[in-house]
Amino acid sequence: MPKVADQYLCVDPWKIIEDGFHSDRSEVSESLFSLANEHQGIRGFFDEGYSGKSLVGVYLNGIYEEHFTEGMSYKGISNRLAFMVNTVNWLYTRIEVDGEMLDLAKSKFSDFRRQLDFRSGELRREFIWETESGKKLKLVLLRLLSMETKELAYQQIRITSLNFSGIVALTIGLDFSVPHHMFNQNFWDCVRKEEGAILGVSQNIGHRLFAGMKVYAEAQQTPIEAEKLIGVRLDVDVVEGRESVVGKFVTLQADRNPAQALDDAWEHGISQLQTSTKRYEEVLECNRAHWENFWGKSDIRIDGDDETQQGIRFCIFQMQQTYRCVIEGANIGAKGLTGEAYNGNAFWDTETYCLPFYLFSNPDAAKALIDYRYKTLPQALARAKDLDCEGACYPIATIDGTESCTLWQHASLQFQPTTAVAYAIWHYFNVTRDQTFLQSEGIELLIQICRFLASRGQWSAKGKFGYYAVMGPDEFQMMVNNNAYTNYMAKRTFEFALQVLDGMDISQLRCSRDELDHWCHMASEMFIPYDSETKLYEQHEGFFNLPHIDVDSMPVEDFPLYHHWSYDRIYRNDMIKQPDVLMFMFLYNQSFSMEEKRANYDYYEPRCIHESSLSPSVHSILASELGRQREAFDFFHFATRIDLDNYNRNTHEGIHTTSIAAAWMNIVYGFGGMRSDGEVLSFKPSIPAHWNSYSFQVAYRGSVIRLEVSQGKALIRIVDGEPVSVKICGQVMEVTRGGVSIEI
Amino acid sequence: MPKVADQYLCVDPWKIIEDGFHSDRSEVSESLFSLANEHQGIRGFFDEGYSGKSLVGVYLNGIYEEHFTEGMSYKGISNRLAFMVNTVNWLYTRIEVDGEMLDLAKSKFSDFRRQLDFRSGELRREFIWETESGKKLKLVLLRLLSMETKELAYQQIRITSLNFSGIVALTIGLDFSVPHHMFNQNFWDCVRKEEGAILGVSQNIGHRLFAGMKVYAEAQQTPIEAEKLIGVRLDVDVVEGRESVVGKFVTLQADRNPAQALDDAWEHGISQLQTSTKRYEEVLECNRAHWENFWGKSDIRIDGDDETQQGIRFCIFQMQQTYRCVIEGANIGAKGLTGEAYNGNAFWDTETYCLPFYLFSNPDAAKALIDYRYKTLPQALARAKDLDCEGACYPIATIDGTESCTLWQHASLQFQPTTAVAYAIWHYFNVTRDQTFLQSEGIELLIQICRFLASRGQWSAKGKFGYYAVMGPDEFQMMVNNNAYTNYMAKRTFEFALQVLDGMDISQLRCSRDELDHWCHMASEMFIPYDSETKLYEQHEGFFNLPHIDVDSMPVEDFPLYHHWSYDRIYRNDMIKQPDVLMFMFLYNQSFSMEEKRANYDYYEPRCIHESSLSPSVHSILASELGRQREAFDFFHFATRIDLDNYNRNTHEGIHTTSIAAAWMNIVYGFGGMRSDGEVLSFKPSIPAHWNSYSFQVAYRGSVIRLEVSQGKALIRIVDGEPVSVKICGQVMEVTRGGVSIEI
Repeated sequence: MPKVADQYLCVDPWKIIEDGFHSDRSEVSESLFSLANEHQGIRGFFDEGYSGKSLVGVYLNGIYEEHFTEGMSYKGISNRLAFMVNTVNWLYTRIEVDGEMLDLAKSKFSDFRRQLDFRSGELRREFIWETESGKKLKLVLLRLLSMETKELAYQQIRITSLNFSGIVALTIGLDFSVPHHMFNQNFWDCVRKEEGAILGVSQNIGHRLFAGMKVYAEAQQTPIEAEKLIGVRLDVDVVEGRESVVGKFVTLQADRNPAQALDDAWEHGISQLQTSTKRYEEVLECNRAHWENFWGKSDIRIDGDDETQQGIRFCIFQMQQTYRCVIEGANIGAKGLTGEAYNGNAFWDTETYCLPFYLFSNPDAAKALIDYRYKTLPQALARAKDLDCEGACYPIATIDGTESCTLWQHASLQFQPTTAVAYAIWHYFNVTRDQTFLQSEGIELLIQICRFLASRGQWSAKGKFGYYAVMGPDEFQMMVNNNAYTNYMAKRTFEFALQVLDGMDISQLRCSRDELDHWCHMASEMFIPYDSETKLYEQHEGFFNLPHIDVDSMPVEDFPLYHHWSYDRIYRNDMIKQPDVLMFMFLYNQSFSMEEKRANYDYYEPRCIHESSLSPSVHSILASELGRQREAFDFFHFATRIDLDNYNRNTHEGIHTTSIAAAWMNIVYGFGGMRSDGEVLSFKPSIPAHWNSYSFQVAYRGSVIRLEVSQGKALIRIVDGEPVSVKICGQVMEVTRGGVSIEI
Repeated sequence: MPKVADQYLCVDPWKIIEDGFHSDRSEVSESLFSLANEHQGIRGFFDEGYSGKSLVGVYLNGIYEEHFTEGMSYKGISNRLAFMVNTVNWLYTRIEVDGEMLDLAKSKFSDFRRQLDFRSGELRREFIWETESGKKLKLVLLRLLSMETKELAYQQIRITSLNFSGIVALTIGLDFSVPHHMFNQNFWDCVRKEEGAILGVSQNIGHRLFAGMKVYAEAQQTPIEAEKLIGVRLDVDVVEGRESVVGKFVTLQADRNPAQALDDAWEHGISQLQTSTKRYEEVLECNRAHWENFWGKSDIRIDGDDETQQGIRFCIFQMQQTYRCVIEGANIGAKGLTGEAYNGNAFWDTETYCLPFYLFSNPDAAKALIDYRYKTLPQALARAKDLDCEGACYPIATIDGTESCTLWQHASLQFQPTTAVAYAIWHYFNVTRDQTFLQSEGIELLIQICRFLASRGQWSAKGKFGYYAVMGPDEFQMMVNNNAYTNYMAKRTFEFALQVLDGMDISQLRCSRDELDHWCHMASEMFIPYDSETKLYEQHEGFFNLPHIDVDSMPVEDFPLYHHWSYDRIYRNDMIKQPDVLMFMFLYNQSFSMEEKRANYDYYEPRCIHESSLSPSVHSILASELGRQREAFDFFHFATRIDLDNYNRNTHEGIHTTSIAAAWMNIVYGFGGMRSDGEVLSFKPSIPAHWNSYSFQVAYRGSVIRLEVSQGKALIRIVDGEPVSVKICGQVMEVTRGGVSIEI
């Protein structure tokens, strides 16, 4: 991997800290210092405005707009892009002294420090501003999103004059005029404004967003108003050496129903605004309690490697900020709630990369993610029809369940989102044994998915079943036949559905025996390109005969290829973006021999350029299994700090949620050697050579298992619930609170 | 072929006639009754306006505009669409009696007849209008484009009152406000207007278009003007039973240079307007002479089949209208100058389908077409660079030499335009022996084309050379490896270039021996998928193993597939749109055995749905060669009358120039059995069973050969120039004015 770290934050096990302002990385910091509480996400932009590079972004889960693209209008090509729309800048602040406006791109300042604490979710920024007239002020700007009451948010500005007494003029407000960065366009109409409250309606979809504020300050408040902004002007009379505090409490109430009466939206918002009375410090305390409880269950502790410790905690913190199942019908966007790249859309990453974290720490959240697919089944049925198919086809990118990827080559040719839903059901059931779900929503989904797979597949001239004109997860092989991943996942999906249906009353499910027989035949005749001599799976028919390219000899300047290579050039050699074969070997890990894993790892890894952030973790986990600890650690380190060290040079667009989720898998599946694709959970722990120890906990079938690993030994024990049977280093054992100690 | 004729025009050997107005086919008729003289093309719309379905279109060769598409912006993806822009409606007319405006969509009328005469290029339309007040007028509307002075055009309106004397109010003018239909947008600014003259400048490109008119009428002329229109109002005092004539002479002067001074454009136009004095009847006479001379050389006479006679003359007439080499740097659009579909762009059709007609009737025009590619070599070099390649890559669609196809899957994956240029050079040389051209422009082009082919090709893991991620001419197999057509044409291109270079001073051409050796190696190791057992060429690697679809069992309602099938569904079975393998067997006909032709015809024909209008002719010619006269005739009949009988149900968009050119090939190559890919020209005549006779002439190496074929015998003789050697039914003979008679 020709990728190198760009580390500029201080290492700390519980915080990220920027010591001195790095203006050249202003947007990277905005992403890293994002706050979110699932309901909303707010980038770490400067409250007071900043004329340098900045993306002022405040995003609400499930609040989106749409854009129709020009271009190809053939059947089955989606030209509607739904995107998580930029909303209201509730931190809007302007600070003025003697007519000089504070702007860190222009003003003179020193002692800049910014930090985000994973134990409270508080973002704190401070610096000393020296005006042109020589006045010096210390400013501390704090912000917080309530983890308890999701609509509530807080801003606090502390001003201390260091060498004068006089007026500091503040304007603070709620600003709906922020452009959605991707289209450089604002998507809000403000239909009602009163002192301290404003109601926005998104222009195409009609989502309602009420924003209200209460300002706490010892100063005269003069209301101000603009077309899409309300606020107050405060003349704060500062006294040298004494701290003046201005606080702002905000409520953001969203309603996704475009038919909702505007008056109702308004009243509902006003009511919450009026009844909320908690002050900043009280909410901070609540947040601390929330995070303490969370870390108690979900922390991964690493002793002996602070950089990695910080990295993995940042990852876990982001997962919890992004999604924890408080919003009805939410999913997880590729950038969480931290930026506009990928339009806030959810991908197959949710089921494949994010789900395990929740499955083993917050099973209700995991179930809700699958339930999202159940709720959007009507859209998936419609999408399959658009593609001249039956059953349910899940979108490659979506917010509201409809296909939102306007690149037909992805939207029409990639089916991993569909098989990923089936895999998620299987995985969820395997870990929870939730028969109720499986035999109701689960089987309903599986039947519709199988129908899609049956109708989209075709029989070759040689009488084998498979998928033609597809793109697997590896997006560098665009339109191929019999992609091993697609075919293998389809085969397993058919088999699982048939296994669930076995013994069920199929007539009640409106299935016929004939239909099941067809699926059975398709599964058994599924063409999986495989060479029994070399043990290699061929990524697709003809892959082995593609022109070879030595990826190690490619100049670093060529990356990312999408920016530097002619588009078509990417798709005509044996280079891969991420590994399809290793991917299904990870997902159904115990179905393959070590020999097969080794052969395929050795063949595909050198051909992979890891241009997808999904790639390193799979390599790390398999490298770990193959005993290649150095490689395993390198891939893991990359995934863990992909954003903190801006490895892909695109963290300014937002964080890489999937890679962050995968970092968790790297420890649990990689070093912990956990496997969840067998009858029982299994572990085979290892530890990187330079760590002293690490530990983590997983929820499993009603109990909580804790794994503590140090050099040479591991302890696996129950910390909550009944003893459970797990496999440890190949042997099934009952684990109790006393635990099982093993040598490693 | 599930395509059926929709015949509504009268059959006549020298005309097309519409007897009674077919309002449901108004736009089809507009296409069929188009006039053109290479400089301009004007659809057969109604002068007086028509509120029914109509596309008022006047197009000038080489006058275009541009549109930038949104969407994918990766390297090598062209997002600039250049399109032949709708210009000025110089036929603009409004006719009013008693305040009632004539509009055949609303007015009461009878005795409608419209005819276009191939021997004059005059379009005549007549009908009787009965006003609401009961007044009856006979109207005859005539129009004509001068074949002698390309800028000149004429309109004549003859009015005869049948039952009253009084005023008929006419407004006639030049109207730049016509929208370009495809974008429903007007692209002209009118920068100067005076009485009888108006200067338009196209908005993005800045082409200048001067339109001037002189009106001849016995009536008071009152000038009128609007933002983009100038004209006159005439109160014509009609007397019952006497014909009143209003004539309009028009000049359209185009300047493609956006830097040209507007005053110069204006003066230039005014000068031609003032110095042109010919009246309608004089120009009509000149046109008759032009067409008489043309038909003398280029007619195909068929005795015993009036429908086909009309069809083939319509085709030849259209070819001459569209292109005859009077405009510098012109090419041939897919719809000629008759509509906006395909944006007036030229495709590989020019070299492959249109060139032979000119090669054998107007070799200067043929050379000029190749010269178009020479003049646009800089654009082709730039395009290759865009694609990360060397040499010259010719655009899939173009007006000005740059790539104008915004669908990347076509623009980036199809290389038949590039090999077609090489083929055209080879073909032109083979027929003309023009060594001067070959050793200058010819070889320069060939070298750059070979460089492109060398840099775009790749070596497979098995050590064979070929092309990956390509689309051949058959656009139903989108992104394949080692397409037989692409590989075969590339091989022949390398071989031809090397043959021309043999003995030339390559250092002067900035070629190295090494480079040539590489080409030689690539040609000899070119992978051409072929099964020596079955004699079948595989259209691409893996084609034989694709899922089979029985095209005969496909419901007729599914056609055209692009409108009814999900886009991706088209690309995943063994159905083809047009035949790649039969295509190269036609182009290099004598390089393949009868056995190979038969085997491949029998394999590919049943898999072909002929959704491309390029397809039937190739089948017809090969069917003829294989002695399948019925099939040959059916395919030919379709191509010959594709527009007259609206077989593809899209003639309203414009005529199918390529199919029209191919109809000519069907007779000459098909029934005449001509082959031009050998050392000498050869003939092997046959004749459809129901024809009495047919004849045609071809120019060949300075002489003109005439072929007259009747049932049982054929006469081949020289009608101009020296005797030439040709091969007749396999035997080389010298043909003189006395000719060679053979039994067939």
